[in-house]
Amino acid sequence: MVQGPPADSSGSRFTPLVVLELASDTNQDAIAWLLSRIRDQQQDGGAELLVEQLGPGVDAQEKENPNVFLVGATWQRLLSGAEDVGLFKEFNDGSMRGFTCANKHDFKDYQGDGDSFLSMAECQYIIKHLLDTLRAKQETHVPGHSEVKLYPGKSIVRRLQSKGILVQVFPLHEKEELKRLSFSWYGKVKLSLQPLDDIRHYYGEGQALYFCFLEYFTFALVPMALIGVPYYLFDWEDYDKYVIFAAFNLVWCTVILELWKRCSASLAYRWGTLSRKKAFEEPRPGFHGVLGFNPVTGREEPLYPHAKRLLRIYLVSLPFVLLCLYLSLYVMMIYFQMEGWALSVHDQEPSFWTGVLLFIPSIIYAVVIEVMNLIYRYAAEFLTEWENHRLESSYQNHLVLKVLVFNFFNCFASLFYIAFVMQDMVLLRQSLATLLITSQILNQFMEAFLPYWLQRRRNKKMMRKVQKRRTLEDKELPLAEQVRLEADMSTYLGTFDDYLELFLLFGYVSLFSCVYPLAAVLVVLNNITEVYSDAFKMCRVFKRPFSDPAANIGVWQLAFEAMSVIAVVTNCSLIGMSPQVKAYFPDSESQLILWTVAIEHVLLAFKFILSFLIPDVPKPIQISLARLEFESLEALKKKKMLEASESSEPVRSPEPSGWRPSEPRNGNETFGYGPFGLC
Amino acid sequence: MVQGPPADSSGSRFTPLVVLELASDTNQDAIAWLLSRIRDQQQDGGAELLVEQLGPGVDAQEKENPNVFLVGATWQRLLSGAEDVGLFKEFNDGSMRGFTCANKHDFKDYQGDGDSFLSMAECQYIIKHLLDTLRAKQETHVPGHSEVKLYPGKSIVRRLQSKGILVQVFPLHEKEELKRLSFSWYGKVKLSLQPLDDIRHYYGEGQALYFCFLEYFTFALVPMALIGVPYYLFDWEDYDKYVIFAAFNLVWCTVILELWKRCSASLAYRWGTLSRKKAFEEPRPGFHGVLGFNPVTGREEPLYPHAKRLLRIYLVSLPFVLLCLYLSLYVMMIYFQMEGWALSVHDQEPSFWTGVLLFIPSIIYAVVIEVMNLIYRYAAEFLTEWENHRLESSYQNHLVLKVLVFNFFNCFASLFYIAFVMQDMVLLRQSLATLLITSQILNQFMEAFLPYWLQRRRNKKMMRKVQKRRTLEDKELPLAEQVRLEADMSTYLGTFDDYLELFLLFGYVSLFSCVYPLAAVLVVLNNITEVYSDAFKMCRVFKRPFSDPAANIGVWQLAFEAMSVIAVVTNCSLIGMSPQVKAYFPDSESQLILWTVAIEHVLLAFKFILSFLIPDVPKPIQISLARLEFESLEALKKKKMLEASESSEPVRSPEPSGWRPSEPRNGNETFGYGPFGLC
Repeated sequence: MVQGPPADSSGSRFTPLVVLELASDTNQDAIAWLLSRIRDQQQDGGAELLVEQLGPGVDAQEKENPNVFLVGATWQRLLSGAEDVGLFKEFNDGSMRGFTCANKHDFKDYQGDGDSFLSMAECQYIIKHLLDTLRAKQETHVPGHSEVKLYPGKSIVRRLQSKGILVQVFPLHEKEELKRLSFSWYGKVKLSLQPLDDIRHYYGEGQALYFCFLEYFTFALVPMALIGVPYYLFDWEDYDKYVIFAAFNLVWCTVILELWKRCSASLAYRWGTLSRKKAFEEPRPGFHGVLGFNPVTGREEPLYPHAKRLLRIYLVSLPFVLLCLYLSLYVMMIYFQMEGWALSVHDQEPSFWTGVLLFIPSIIYAVVIEVMNLIYRYAAEFLTEWENHRLESSYQNHLVLKVLVFNFFNCFASLFYIAFVMQDMVLLRQSLATLLITSQILNQFMEAFLPYWLQRRRNKKMMRKVQKRRTLEDKELPLAEQVRLEADMSTYLGTFDDYLELFLLFGYVSLFSCVYPLAAVLVVLNNITEVYSDAFKMCRVFKRPFSDPAANIGVWQLAFEAMSVIAVVTNCSLIGMSPQVKAYFPDSESQLILWTVAIEHVLLAFKFILSFLIPDVPKPIQISLARLEFESLEALKKKKMLEASESSEPVRSPEPSGWRPSEPRNGNETFGYGPFGLC
Repeated sequence: MVQGPPADSSGSRFTPLVVLELASDTNQDAIAWLLSRIRDQQQDGGAELLVEQLGPGVDAQEKENPNVFLVGATWQRLLSGAEDVGLFKEFNDGSMRGFTCANKHDFKDYQGDGDSFLSMAECQYIIKHLLDTLRAKQETHVPGHSEVKLYPGKSIVRRLQSKGILVQVFPLHEKEELKRLSFSWYGKVKLSLQPLDDIRHYYGEGQALYFCFLEYFTFALVPMALIGVPYYLFDWEDYDKYVIFAAFNLVWCTVILELWKRCSASLAYRWGTLSRKKAFEEPRPGFHGVLGFNPVTGREEPLYPHAKRLLRIYLVSLPFVLLCLYLSLYVMMIYFQMEGWALSVHDQEPSFWTGVLLFIPSIIYAVVIEVMNLIYRYAAEFLTEWENHRLESSYQNHLVLKVLVFNFFNCFASLFYIAFVMQDMVLLRQSLATLLITSQILNQFMEAFLPYWLQRRRNKKMMRKVQKRRTLEDKELPLAEQVRLEADMSTYLGTFDDYLELFLLFGYVSLFSCVYPLAAVLVVLNNITEVYSDAFKMCRVFKRPFSDPAANIGVWQLAFEAMSVIAVVTNCSLIGMSPQVKAYFPDSESQLILWTVAIEHVLLAFKFILSFLIPDVPKPIQISLARLEFESLEALKKKKMLEASESSEPVRSPEPSGWRPSEPRNGNETFGYGPFGLC
């Protein structure tokens, strides 16, 4: 049932959407088999997609990989795929509903086949999903590669990926739209907001949420920065006044996180990801184990004992992380020794150069911190890989946890030490400033300019190569060259590093900005350049990433909230240590401490109550979600009533009986009403 | 379409399940209308139930209410009702699935029509649901009662209830089963566990969960009690040794609550309520407002502005609660004055009587606390009613919150004052003992023996009345008398007071048992008698309550967890105040406080991490829930595939498109995998 060559299949013009690159030494049998499986009808277990080999480049005599394939799909297939992945689209009545082919005409933007109802990013996401869920039938191995074992139900693409036969799968950029997007995003210096809907349209919800969070965070910092400037200008050496600033800090970090949840829920609702159901997660490509039956799906797949993973986590990873923390402490102590030495040199013979010398240890320490973070990052990835998590989400959570703990410790330990053990506010301010500025400069360089420079070199080489062959007046590359160029671009590794950077900046501001009020100003400036450099690298440096239908910033929300709890504790302690407050308790230090602790407990309790009282989802959205649920329940009831009146003794249906309109884990949350929320 | 008299309708024998009592002055038109609506076919908007007037009693000349009706249902109706309410039953493969009539034969206990597949409690719950969802059609008022306004879609039963025409609806006891249950429950003095499955079978899941929690709590206290006895016996006046006890306390209260969640989830899964969807909640009978359209259902119903409710809560209820707290503080201060006076009398001329006098203030204070709690309870109910909550659950949450805060404050304020302000451990121990013992004695009396004595008198009166007429050798009352007797029984007001009592006991033990190790022993003893007295009052004193398909102990879990956080703080402070620990910091009190606070913070952080790491649902249940969800997704996919192969261009279905297999709020929780949970 192999379809004809895609160019003339079913009369639709072929738009390449996704690129599959196989290793150049792949067996021809394997290629033919894979292509036929991709082209096969759905009934026969195929993906029913269009696929075409990429023609040779301009410089065909060069050693270039011939096994590059372009994948596309018919409009019908994309629509049914949209239903499979559970895409939410705007309905006629303005609500967001799961798309179904059956009533496609009731969706707002649907104007007919072949229109722009689905964005290119959505089409690419659908194709990726269809490729990922292309499963082995009775094959025991990939034809021509007997070492690549298969078993019924195994995702073919995942297996080829893990065995290195499938080098990469990536979606193609859309030159015209990218040009428009990049112009409105960072092309002009302007005071407008980011084009979030366009970003979402081009890169998907996960990316757009990151940029929205970055923007939100920057705006949230503006009041902080505005208060910080006069503090910095007028009270240069007056650390007493920081009590008000610390109190403000403490309220600020609680409130902005609560409001962000609501903001994120609104966006996710508008983009249709809020109530979208995640597909059943496949095991990640690197997962290995002994073949067995998955207790949930009943499918044959590798199983790895949970106990063994727990042993690896608690007996290897945990001690390793603790060892790294200890090392980081050790480095910190060396820094303090250097600091002391620099100070003693400066005190002996103060000059301009010894004044500069005072900053050197901090700068070195800041660089060392960044280097340690980087090395640790690789170690953490290796360890988490070795822990052999079954799901990508579980892998990500463990990685984030490892990296977060170390980065937090590495960046903030010295500041905590200076603040609470040495109680030296001048040194704290100086350290904070040096750390903040150095790490920002390093980050911007490593993150955007270095990759850009590398990419630019590659681009130029390709241009020169093409121009050798023929003259291109419009400077547009032909498709084959464009694809090969994109295949060579760096792969975007997700928003992990971007969020991590924001997390650390949030820490600097929320924990210690009261002693260095300019911190907020610096972070605002950094964030503004960050928007530009991140936008730039997304558009010009990296391969287009597959869109990720995120409904929120996930584990990062938790991380930021944990940081805000630490911020409450830290700011309370800083307030308690201030001379101003100390003056109220001239006689008894323990009275002072007891009061500080009592107030801190009250504030923490208040923070928890506040986060409990403020509903995470704004009321209008709660109502419209509840309405959807109610309507589907009513429809089900009506349908049953109809069936019952048609036949008094209903026939047994082929559906399993576990099938209920929806089975939420927690009955109370069904209609989105919190315990003390709506009505 | 009114059915004939129920006795000969559709040939099924009529089993009365639920009693409806209308006011004796109800208009006959209204009665006829109500009965016909209850009997009407479902297609005509009726409840399709069987209903029959209760015959006159033995003593018919007496002024007894003639408007008592018995409601039953055909077997078919009960089964379709079970599907409507979303009852979960055990499937052939051992998993729990939502019951559907279409594949009733695939359920394990289904043996044919009319068998014991549904328990009587379930049948009664179904009938209650069907009665509650019996809605007005085009009637503008109840016939014969023009003051009882109706509008399309209004629940008839709720409106009749709120206008006092429907006096009560209650399920009938089942004499034989009740006798069996009460014998195995409290009839014999034994060392076995409670018959939880039987309790659930007879009273429903909510009741059974309470008794299970009571049992769990008692067992959890046993180690505490075992450690407490030698402490009490050998270290009578040695308060130094309580550090270890306090540390044990602190771990204990965290661990038992985490384990309870898992235990409760297992039970709820076994009973089929864990993944059961709550029905869309009707407005509570007392709710009033201006007619408008519900934004969720689109139905006409009274609306009450949320802002107005918030104003009532924050401007009236909150100040009232604060005022009561102040009053409670005031009473506490009077108690301390009495205490001081008694002590001075005892010090002047110590004798046996002045020794007794020392306990008098505590006893009086304990009684006053109970009385204040009782009065406050009524005020809180009035206020919460006045806040006009739309949903019963919201009403309950606000009531629980109000009562909890006051009760906590009222019971524990004096203990906190003695412990942390007066720092008098001898007085603390004495106060705690008096409070605990007095309140237990009062509670047991008020809760079980007083109602029992009242009920006994009523029973005897009825017996005498019946025996006047005819001689009953088997002492069995005829149905009419039985119904009227049960109608006169007190109404069980839910598990609120029972949980509240446990909550306070949990507080006494977790907060202060380290200074009075016998507390745990006393609570264990109290709980054992509590099981008997609660079981007794459920079986003999109260009307049978409608079953409540609870999946957990709801807001009480939160309350107990909040208490355990307070317990960590309290125990840390008690440890910090102990002479043993103080000896480590002979010079600096502030060092001692700082260390105590640091350790407390670490413990709190650890507690949160622990509650995050321990999955709330045991793994086998997570897996079986995930399997169900997976199967229903697969079935949907197959169905769509079938449809797609039947017609290339599918016809538009009448279902709304929001209809997806399930739309959980939070994609991550879909398959029950916590962030760091299962694989």
